[in-house]
Amino acid sequence: MALWGYKNQTKMEANNEVFETEYWKVFLMPNQTYLGYCSVSLKRRDCGDLADMTNDEIIDFLKLAKKLESAIKKAFGATMFNWTCLMNLAYQNNPPTPHMHWHFRPRYDHKVTFAGLEFVDQFFGQHYDWPPTERILNDAVREKIIDEIEKLID
Amino acid sequence: MALWGYKNQTKMEANNEVFETEYWKVFLMPNQTYLGYCSVSLKRRDCGDLADMTNDEIIDFLKLAKKLESAIKKAFGATMFNWTCLMNLAYQNNPPTPHMHWHFRPRYDHKVTFAGLEFVDQFFGQHYDWPPTERILNDAVREKIIDEIEKLID
Repeated sequence: MALWGYKNQTKMEANNEVFETEYWKVFLMPNQTYLGYCSVSLKRRDCGDLADMTNDEIIDFLKLAKKLESAIKKAFGATMFNWTCLMNLAYQNNPPTPHMHWHFRPRYDHKVTFAGLEFVDQFFGQHYDWPPTERILNDAVREKIIDEIEKLID
Repeated sequence: MALWGYKNQTKMEANNEVFETEYWKVFLMPNQTYLGYCSVSLKRRDCGDLADMTNDEIIDFLKLAKKLESAIKKAFGATMFNWTCLMNLAYQNNPPTPHMHWHFRPRYDHKVTFAGLEFVDQFFGQHYDWPPTERILNDAVREKIIDEIEKLID
């Protein structure tokens, strides 16, 4: 199942969990062009569409969004956030295999330095870059990003 | 204020309202590359971020999403839907002027004919096209699209 355009989902999830709530899990995305880019994935696997969420799931999502945005602002000084719910790649399978998740891209109106690396949001004030620029970091830096977010989640 | 990258927002809103709920208004977007492409705009003007929605607003949004998706499936046979919450262009203003709204793009795994026009979702199973292909329809066809959705909203 090709979620998030990432071939080895299980491995991705195992190494990159940031935090969880009653209904959702947050994972750091492989591509960190946008520092703190995460996926927010519904634990319930039989929901493949935004409109199929329950009231409890979407209320829990809103609570999570507040916590995640607040943590990323404190951690990296993000200016604002892009949220998308797409599930397009899952429709390349027959039958389709959509699983409800969000893409969460922090956006920055200034250059940010973290773990000795510079992050520049080249298209701030515009749509996120598509096709995406890939910026894959080494495991040590990814762990630092996850730790930094984790410790700021209240 | 340049919402949705559309210069004359008031005019756009006046001519293109599809329906409203307690907290939200739905407008047909000028670009109909994706047949039924709408914006879903929070009536409260002082909310500029997804995480700043109230519980009542997000519950009402979920109810609206169920209605809108159902109507678009019945009207045009949409296969699935892309939801995005971005607000990027509002950050080109100083100070920024974000206003909470969603972009709702129906996606189609087959060619659709409506009002004698053909609609082909060239990138079904992939991210929506960016930069976008512009497909601006004449007023008569736009009205037909709005009427068709309106009559199927329960």
